[in-house]
Amino acid sequence: MINSLCIIGVGLIGGSLARALRATGYCKEVVGGGRDPQHLQQAVDLGVIDRFDTDLAAAVAGADMVLVAVPLGAMQTVFEKIRDHLEDNAVLTDAGSAKGSVIEAAQRVFGSVPAWFVPGHPIAGTENSGVSASLPDLYHDRRVILTPMENTDVSAVSRVRRMWEAAGAKVTEMDSIHHDAVLAATSHLPHVLAFTLVNSLGRTGDREELFAYAAGGFRDFTRIASSDPVMWRDICLANGDAILLRIDQFIEDLQALRRSVQEEDGERLLDLFESAKQVRDAFIEK
Amino acid sequence: MINSLCIIGVGLIGGSLARALRATGYCKEVVGGGRDPQHLQQAVDLGVIDRFDTDLAAAVAGADMVLVAVPLGAMQTVFEKIRDHLEDNAVLTDAGSAKGSVIEAAQRVFGSVPAWFVPGHPIAGTENSGVSASLPDLYHDRRVILTPMENTDVSAVSRVRRMWEAAGAKVTEMDSIHHDAVLAATSHLPHVLAFTLVNSLGRTGDREELFAYAAGGFRDFTRIASSDPVMWRDICLANGDAILLRIDQFIEDLQALRRSVQEEDGERLLDLFESAKQVRDAFIEK
Repeated sequence: MINSLCIIGVGLIGGSLARALRATGYCKEVVGGGRDPQHLQQAVDLGVIDRFDTDLAAAVAGADMVLVAVPLGAMQTVFEKIRDHLEDNAVLTDAGSAKGSVIEAAQRVFGSVPAWFVPGHPIAGTENSGVSASLPDLYHDRRVILTPMENTDVSAVSRVRRMWEAAGAKVTEMDSIHHDAVLAATSHLPHVLAFTLVNSLGRTGDREELFAYAAGGFRDFTRIASSDPVMWRDICLANGDAILLRIDQFIEDLQALRRSVQEEDGERLLDLFESAKQVRDAFIEK
Repeated sequence: MINSLCIIGVGLIGGSLARALRATGYCKEVVGGGRDPQHLQQAVDLGVIDRFDTDLAAAVAGADMVLVAVPLGAMQTVFEKIRDHLEDNAVLTDAGSAKGSVIEAAQRVFGSVPAWFVPGHPIAGTENSGVSASLPDLYHDRRVILTPMENTDVSAVSRVRRMWEAAGAKVTEMDSIHHDAVLAATSHLPHVLAFTLVNSLGRTGDREELFAYAAGGFRDFTRIASSDPVMWRDICLANGDAILLRIDQFIEDLQALRRSVQEEDGERLLDLFESAKQVRDAFIEK
């Protein structure tokens, strides 16, 4: 159980956790922190949080659990603002899509990574953003990855784990570097490709006509290109090395397929498409 | 109205048209043609077609409308088999995803492209294939593109148009070369990218783990990689030139984004993602 949960950044991710935990009664109070009072008032009006404070020092006062759910580029500033105001018994966690950069930001602000800081990442979301898009069941049966350090307090990890489990999530732990490599492959690369595809088509003169003849496959394929640009800029800056590796591997594979098209190598093309279908169908069965 | 509709290739595309036209009573009879009697019997059992013949010469006998809905690589063989058996009043059309190669196949088989052949392409489908995946409303409000030639009979075009409209589709006409360029961009390139992404991740050692942490965005993004491999091999062979152009443009754009990641150019990344989101959101509003 959480007494007072402070969520800094009440958007899709933070708002959905607040909704889930309020619905189950897992926390007595949810306090929102952030920059925009109108946005936070909307979160109160929607019943997502109990109250808010735009002064983050005041927002974390009394909180035994603090979740920072802001874009990666804003993590360090938030850590700086709350550093001297966290309660003695407070556990700090975050929801960043890359973990190495958040750990580095914590190290810079706190001197060393505090034992009561548990880096975390809920693998959930939609292409929509903002508190109005938040859903109480967003985390139901979804994965949350925690990336504790060697010195992280075991009971702090346990408290964060139980919070996400109370929201319906399946929690696993892994090394932060491994997390960043896995997510570069399964999330960051696909987003980069979707953004690039839309731009690539968008910059042709006949854009309107192109989109008029796009079918459902195109809509699904490009859904993630409607995701929040600031969030994705920050992810590309925070996890650049892992993303570059995946982009390079993808270009290599695309060049190989390109050669098969150019050489009209039907056998090779069939092989490629069959293996992709097999892998993808197997993924969906799970 | 159609008296007897012969559909050669009773899969997702042919089967869905048959279901739609039987539901509205737009044709008196639907005859299936194809190679696999078990598959065709399944189509009869599902109520998709009235009867079938694996001898295509017999299948087209008595038909005033013949739709060939087979993979592009099988078009020429089908044309050869039916050439001397079509009724005098029959209109021939097809459902191929690329039009240039079908027109060339017709030219080779018939000597010149017949005035009663109307090349066509319904822009609809799902990642599933086969008659069991066919749906009566697959074409509802979807586009069908016809690419008649200069010598194509106007009344033949009109009969094909009315058939698709009876199935709920919105029919437009364009030049076959333009069709192939548009579809390379909006359909063929996205499929190539999805197949490549799945293979690119699939060939890494930690595939199982990668997919365990893939979220909904990944599922949507890779849905089209579950499409029929034979169909897509044929599309890549049939529309290779247009696809190569689009792959090259995409790689150029991806390299540009790659440079922004490497140079940690946040401003440029934000520009790219904002413009993609804007274009994609505008597409969805339509």
